[in-house]
Amino acid sequence: MKFFRWGPVGQEKPGAVDANGVHRDISDLIPDVAGENLDRSKLARLQTADLSECPVVPADARRGPCVGRVGKFICVGLNYADHAAESGMDVPEEPVLFFKATSAICGPDDNIIIPRGGTKTDWEVELGVVIGTDGAYIDVEDAVDHIAGYCVINDLSERGFQLERSGQWVKGKSADTFGPIGPYLVTLDDVPDPDNLNIWLEIDGKRVQDGNTRTMIYKIPFLVSYISQFMSLQAGDVISTGTPPGVGLGMDPPTYLEAGQKMRVGIEGLGEQNQMTVSWQTETTTTRLAEVS
Amino acid sequence: MKFFRWGPVGQEKPGAVDANGVHRDISDLIPDVAGENLDRSKLARLQTADLSECPVVPADARRGPCVGRVGKFICVGLNYADHAAESGMDVPEEPVLFFKATSAICGPDDNIIIPRGGTKTDWEVELGVVIGTDGAYIDVEDAVDHIAGYCVINDLSERGFQLERSGQWVKGKSADTFGPIGPYLVTLDDVPDPDNLNIWLEIDGKRVQDGNTRTMIYKIPFLVSYISQFMSLQAGDVISTGTPPGVGLGMDPPTYLEAGQKMRVGIEGLGEQNQMTVSWQTETTTTRLAEVS
Repeated sequence: MKFFRWGPVGQEKPGAVDANGVHRDISDLIPDVAGENLDRSKLARLQTADLSECPVVPADARRGPCVGRVGKFICVGLNYADHAAESGMDVPEEPVLFFKATSAICGPDDNIIIPRGGTKTDWEVELGVVIGTDGAYIDVEDAVDHIAGYCVINDLSERGFQLERSGQWVKGKSADTFGPIGPYLVTLDDVPDPDNLNIWLEIDGKRVQDGNTRTMIYKIPFLVSYISQFMSLQAGDVISTGTPPGVGLGMDPPTYLEAGQKMRVGIEGLGEQNQMTVSWQTETTTTRLAEVS
Repeated sequence: MKFFRWGPVGQEKPGAVDANGVHRDISDLIPDVAGENLDRSKLARLQTADLSECPVVPADARRGPCVGRVGKFICVGLNYADHAAESGMDVPEEPVLFFKATSAICGPDDNIIIPRGGTKTDWEVELGVVIGTDGAYIDVEDAVDHIAGYCVINDLSERGFQLERSGQWVKGKSADTFGPIGPYLVTLDDVPDPDNLNIWLEIDGKRVQDGNTRTMIYKIPFLVSYISQFMSLQAGDVISTGTPPGVGLGMDPPTYLEAGQKMRVGIEGLGEQNQMTVSWQTETTTTRLAEVS
C-alpha cells in the first residue's frame, strides 16, 4: 500500500492510494503518517479499511514528505562499490554512517535551494527505509520487522561544504531542502524484492544515475541491524541507503547543479520526484522553517 | 530565570525556579519547555508571572532533559585549543561540526549506559546553547537574539565506535543516554557572561576536567551564525560548544569509564548533573525508547 502526505508546508495531512489508484485523504483514520502510526500492525489495519468514503485529494495538492516528525535522518555512505570508486574513496570495511539535519527534509516536488556560497550542489538518488517499530541491538533476522516501508530520497550535498570546510560531512548535507522524501511510503507487501529495484535520476531530461539496488554492498536488514548497534531506532526514523554511480562529483570534470534545472528522481515501484533548482536569493527558507517548527 | 522539566521519562512536565529558589510546576502556564515556547518573548512573560500559586515540585522527582522535542543536537568539535592538543588533533581552521542522535538525549541525573561492545566510553562537559527563535544565515551581531538560554551537557562518546569503525564520528556519539541535558535551561538574563564560566567534570570525586569557557576558540555568537550558514536553526535545537581538556582519550594511558562510576558535571551558574555509569546488560533501553517515541 502507498501512503503519502499532502497540503501546505507544515500542515500536511495523511493520505493513501486506494485499490483503484485514487489518492484519498485519510485524516479521519489516522492523524498523520508519523510516529506510532507507522507500526506495521496499524498500517496493516489501514490496508483492510474501506477508503471509498474518504475524500479524494485534489490533483494539484502539494505533496509533502511522506513521513512526518522524522526523528533521525541517517545516511549510509559509499554503499555502491562503483559510486565509491567515482568518489575517489575506497569501499569501506564496514558501512559509513552520517546524519542529515531533519530540517533539510522537504516534499518530493519542492524546489531545491542552492545554498548561499554553494557552487558544488550535487544529487544522489537513494532508497529510503522508514522505521516503523522502535528497537536497539536488532538482529539481522529481525530487522525487517522494524521496517514500515520504503521511499525515494534525493540526498543532496554541497560538496564544497562537505569536503573542503574542516571535518565532518554534516556541513554539506544539511541545507534546507537537501532531503526530499517521497512521494510515497510504500509498505513491504508492495515491495516484494527491495534488493532488485531500478533506481535513477535525470537532470534536464538526461539520465545521469541509472542503477539497481541489487548492487548495494550492504543490504537493508544488515544496515538496520548495524545502525541499531550504535543508536536506538524509533518509529519515524529514516535511513537513506546510499547512491549508485552517476553523481556530479564523479564526473570528469565534476559537474554540479545550477539554478533553473529540473530533476526527475525515481525508484521502480516507489514513485517519482520532480524538482526545480533555485538560488537561495530567490527563495527564502521561510516556508521551510514553517515545516519543522 | 531557570526552567527545567521533571517527571517520568517521556512524560516530563515543565517547571521553573521561583524568586525564592522554589521549584514550581508550571504546567498551567506552558505545555512544555519546548518548541515555540522557547521564544524569548514568551520566556520573558513567564519571568514576570506570579509562580506562588504553582504547585511545588516534589524534591525526589526525576529531572528530565531541560528542553523537550529537540530537533537537532549539533556539536562543535575541538573548540578548546588544549583539548584539541590532548586529542592529537590540530586546531581546525574553522569549527568542526557533528551531530549526535536526538535519541541519545536523557535527563541530567539518568544512568549513563555503556553500550554493547563499548570499551572506550568517554566524557566531555560542554556548555549547551538552546535555540529559541528560528533562523537561517544569521549574522553574528544578531545571533544572541536567537538564543533561549544555556545549559550543561555531557557529550559522551564511545571512542572505539567514533574513531576505529570507518568514517564519521556519529557512530560513537549517538548511543542512548550519551546526551544528558540540564538540569536547567538558564535564560540570558541569568548568564551575564557566558564567556567566563567555570566548567568541570568529576569522576568518583576526582576532578578530571577543570576549565573556563573563556578559553573557547570560537565564541557563541560566531558559532550560532556559522552553523546557520549550513543549516537553518529551529527553536529547540541544541548546540554543544565543545569541551575543555581532561577527557579520557587525552590521558596517558587513555582512561575510560567503567560501570559503577559516579560523574558530577557542572558549569558555574547552570547547575550540576550527577550520573552513575551502568552496563547495557543491566539497564535496557526501554525507558529511553519511551522518551522519544
